[in-house]
Amino acid sequence: MTYQAPIRDIMFNIEHLPAKKTAAAGGGIELSDIEAALEGLGRFCSDVIAPLSRTGDEAGARLEGAEAVLPEPYAQAYAQFAEMGWQSLPHPEEFGGMGLPRAAAAAATEILNASDLSFGLCPLLTDGAVEALLLTGSDAQKQKYLEPMISGQWSGTMNLTEPQAGSDLGRVRCKAEPAADGTYAVSGTKIFITYGEHGLTENIIHLVLARTPNAPAGPKGLSLFIVPKFLVEEDGTLGRRNAVTCVSLEHKLGVRASPTAVLEYDGATGFLVGEENRGLEYMFVMMRAARFAVGVQGVAVSERACQHALQYAQDRVQSRPVDGSTKDAAPIIRHPDVQRMLLRMRALTEGGRALAIATAGWLDLAKQAETQGASDAVDMAEFLVPLVKAFCTERSLEVTSLGVQVHGGMGFIEETGVAQFYRDARILPIYEGTTAIQANDLLGRKVLRDGGATARRFAGLVQETEQDLQQGSEQAQAVAKRLGEARRMFEASLAWLLDNAAADPNAAYGGSVPFLMLTGNLATAWQLGRSVLAASAKLEQGEDTAFMTQKIATAVFYAQHILVECGAEGLRITEGSASLGDAAVNL
Amino acid sequence: MTYQAPIRDIMFNIEHLPAKKTAAAGGGIELSDIEAALEGLGRFCSDVIAPLSRTGDEAGARLEGAEAVLPEPYAQAYAQFAEMGWQSLPHPEEFGGMGLPRAAAAAATEILNASDLSFGLCPLLTDGAVEALLLTGSDAQKQKYLEPMISGQWSGTMNLTEPQAGSDLGRVRCKAEPAADGTYAVSGTKIFITYGEHGLTENIIHLVLARTPNAPAGPKGLSLFIVPKFLVEEDGTLGRRNAVTCVSLEHKLGVRASPTAVLEYDGATGFLVGEENRGLEYMFVMMRAARFAVGVQGVAVSERACQHALQYAQDRVQSRPVDGSTKDAAPIIRHPDVQRMLLRMRALTEGGRALAIATAGWLDLAKQAETQGASDAVDMAEFLVPLVKAFCTERSLEVTSLGVQVHGGMGFIEETGVAQFYRDARILPIYEGTTAIQANDLLGRKVLRDGGATARRFAGLVQETEQDLQQGSEQAQAVAKRLGEARRMFEASLAWLLDNAAADPNAAYGGSVPFLMLTGNLATAWQLGRSVLAASAKLEQGEDTAFMTQKIATAVFYAQHILVECGAEGLRITEGSASLGDAAVNL
Repeated sequence: MTYQAPIRDIMFNIEHLPAKKTAAAGGGIELSDIEAALEGLGRFCSDVIAPLSRTGDEAGARLEGAEAVLPEPYAQAYAQFAEMGWQSLPHPEEFGGMGLPRAAAAAATEILNASDLSFGLCPLLTDGAVEALLLTGSDAQKQKYLEPMISGQWSGTMNLTEPQAGSDLGRVRCKAEPAADGTYAVSGTKIFITYGEHGLTENIIHLVLARTPNAPAGPKGLSLFIVPKFLVEEDGTLGRRNAVTCVSLEHKLGVRASPTAVLEYDGATGFLVGEENRGLEYMFVMMRAARFAVGVQGVAVSERACQHALQYAQDRVQSRPVDGSTKDAAPIIRHPDVQRMLLRMRALTEGGRALAIATAGWLDLAKQAETQGASDAVDMAEFLVPLVKAFCTERSLEVTSLGVQVHGGMGFIEETGVAQFYRDARILPIYEGTTAIQANDLLGRKVLRDGGATARRFAGLVQETEQDLQQGSEQAQAVAKRLGEARRMFEASLAWLLDNAAADPNAAYGGSVPFLMLTGNLATAWQLGRSVLAASAKLEQGEDTAFMTQKIATAVFYAQHILVECGAEGLRITEGSASLGDAAVNL
Repeated sequence: MTYQAPIRDIMFNIEHLPAKKTAAAGGGIELSDIEAALEGLGRFCSDVIAPLSRTGDEAGARLEGAEAVLPEPYAQAYAQFAEMGWQSLPHPEEFGGMGLPRAAAAAATEILNASDLSFGLCPLLTDGAVEALLLTGSDAQKQKYLEPMISGQWSGTMNLTEPQAGSDLGRVRCKAEPAADGTYAVSGTKIFITYGEHGLTENIIHLVLARTPNAPAGPKGLSLFIVPKFLVEEDGTLGRRNAVTCVSLEHKLGVRASPTAVLEYDGATGFLVGEENRGLEYMFVMMRAARFAVGVQGVAVSERACQHALQYAQDRVQSRPVDGSTKDAAPIIRHPDVQRMLLRMRALTEGGRALAIATAGWLDLAKQAETQGASDAVDMAEFLVPLVKAFCTERSLEVTSLGVQVHGGMGFIEETGVAQFYRDARILPIYEGTTAIQANDLLGRKVLRDGGATARRFAGLVQETEQDLQQGSEQAQAVAKRLGEARRMFEASLAWLLDNAAADPNAAYGGSVPFLMLTGNLATAWQLGRSVLAASAKLEQGEDTAFMTQKIATAVFYAQHILVECGAEGLRITEGSASLGDAAVNL
């Protein structure tokens, strides 16, 4: 089966963003324009990209000499993708982009990645590189590189990791020696470079972290360089091949059609971006976008798994219903545990989408706020991004696993296709910063640094939604009840972390992932609570009754089956911290 | 790295079985004899089997003509395995077995499967077939088939599944026509037959469910047949090739070296086992053993994942400790979240082992009880087996996933080997009855049928352990506290299910998997609670202090980090049942 973009649910979320005006932040773009663009992308993905994913997985990317060869149909599909202008969706009109707001761009990222994560990674990395150059590149660099990247003619990469430097970028050794002409000679080995080598585009713009001579040791001695695969002449044409070589591609558990390269830089010509020694700072800005996008990949692969599981459960006939409603074997969707699995998958997927699109709204507000000097929106966006990255990707492991389980034995057979989603998803909580890295970021930078101010503001916003829900239907009140319990557990955990982090950092950081999962769960339920309010209002107007009824039922299910997990997370953080420390002594 | 059998922990569990005398139930076998046998098996598995698993996974089993060809080194390894007599461990001395009690046999199953699940499946299926023949075969059949199977010279299979009959065996269509000589001509297609074809052994003894002419429709018209790959002459030598052909092998997510066959029976000569139309009943007896063994596979792959993750965490240096204890990057095992992951892996693995070995003890008691007419032990064993099968295998998904996560990006690279554990484990909650099937079995047959009597007895046993723990150290009391909370949640859930199952079976069965996971979690913690009592006693005697301290710390960690999940499971079953039903309407 192919994939159908969930346009209705996406538009419901965009329409009910926490900050309404952000939907039009791209310059007066109407919701109907966004819907039309996403529908077009959805058709393209259903027709062209989704059918690639199985064959791409089987063939995998492979190295011939120093060239990464992708499975046959990828080149043609990519050419179409670029020609139709899909790469340009979120980028500024000044450089040929369509300037869609982030919420719409997030939806586009979801649609593309749901159709094939391996394919989606190329545009995702290009988006990240574009973002970095927009924020930190010189005008000349922007003029030279941005248009062909935004058009999809060239792609971009992020070159951070080295064998000894994964999560710990301070250990990067790659060197950049200044030359007389103002360029740098970049040398060293970078690993795990997504789409680091391929022939889909004419050129690849590598953004590389490296160390200039006499730079300080550690993370504060890293600078950022543009190292194009082919040097670019003043007139924009391609010049000589640069000294960067792909020496190996990884043999991976999933996203197998996506070439993950080991790149050898041997005095490659590089161009400094911004100031020396500020590379990591620039990368962090860029990573915010990339981390958010990876979180959206989690939603994407979850949606894909949902669609397959639902279809199979409707088709597969096995065993009589337990309620005795018929003597014949029934489609398995009539069995309560299959329903439970499908509803868990749906609730987590729609919840993740709601969280991601809401966060996109805050990111757009943050962008406006940055120019206006208001920091509240920036802080809230910064608080939410690690949740999107880690919560949505961790949950995608569960959703894709349930997708296999719904299929029974057939789920274990590769030809069915759902095992691939399970394999593909496994990288998501790892790359662009593992879940532990996101949790450290949340706890250290976003919670402890401001003494819990943003976290308390977040809890206040949740509480406002609870109060609104308490005025509503029985279902709304049921959601409010669980939201309140989870929010109080969040507040108790927050208080414990604020009290203990300074004196016992090991205890606090041992609770960092439980805290992230608790907070992500609460933030997701908050958005689903908001969707109950929005759907209830629509229902009263008699609008789209079936859809609105389902939105409400899904939110109640989420509250009563998934949000209740916050209790255990809270206990782990507070009462469980000593036992972690005690047991760790014996590791 | 290779694998080291966790003999110390295994022997600790066997020594402290709930029913002491069962350790010697095989006829006066001493603990030291069991230990020696397991150590021997452990060495063989470390040296010979574990090194196969990566190459076996890469090559996979493949079909050449109608022959299943296994990766090269499997044949030699299997020959050694048989020659050393490892297949015979749990089987009666009467037929050449070593007659080890089930707890020791469970440990042997764990060790073998930890070294390679793909390899382990062949002996596992043979064990199941031996068990079935012991229970239901005629004396002549036992004489003919058992010795070469117990010696490992021949292997065995279970042939249940057909394309339209997976969980729903009543839909089996395979035919068995009686012939004049008392044999049957078996015809039909069986799928998902583990080790259904291979050349490791001289012969394969298929046990096949089929339908005789005029048999009743549905599950009560199935009979069980022996269908040997090669017919066996009266003198035990092999005769003509039977009409059973392997037409395909599955291309699977994991256990790729294990041949999963589609078998075509075309008037193959079969021999009725026991009485006609009682085949499913016989299979259920056999499945109890097989389901238990699959649960042990969950412990096995978890142990393997633990060993790899611990080693990597000790070796990999990355980032400074958060407590500032050194300015240098440290082995990642010093980071609190890595410790949390490793401890979760260890607690789930040691907990699963404790549950499996304790259940083996009950199974041995049940065997004695069956002959003595006491049914309490039988009921308790029947109650525990679906927990071992489903809880230990579902948790193995989490443990192997954490194993990948500890490795970061390296975990996603197939050469590291830990991605394979993640893939291999994924079949465990599916085959031999999915988690939902186990949950139906637990709720329907083991709980509702006797009005909750066995379940209440189970809760009573847990409560006894709580009371013992309350007399103990601070740590023992901490475990007792959480055990009590979880037990009360179990009792509340049980009461709700007993009250509602008749009137609203959909609501009850929608809670069946949460109930199984709650019960499995509680049963595991109960065993770890018992291990605190045992380890505390040893500590007082000054025996093996480091090990005993670790046992206690792991149990407290389990209680405070994993057992606390029972709260959410209970809420799902009781308060969450209506929202599941409401949301299911909209699926």
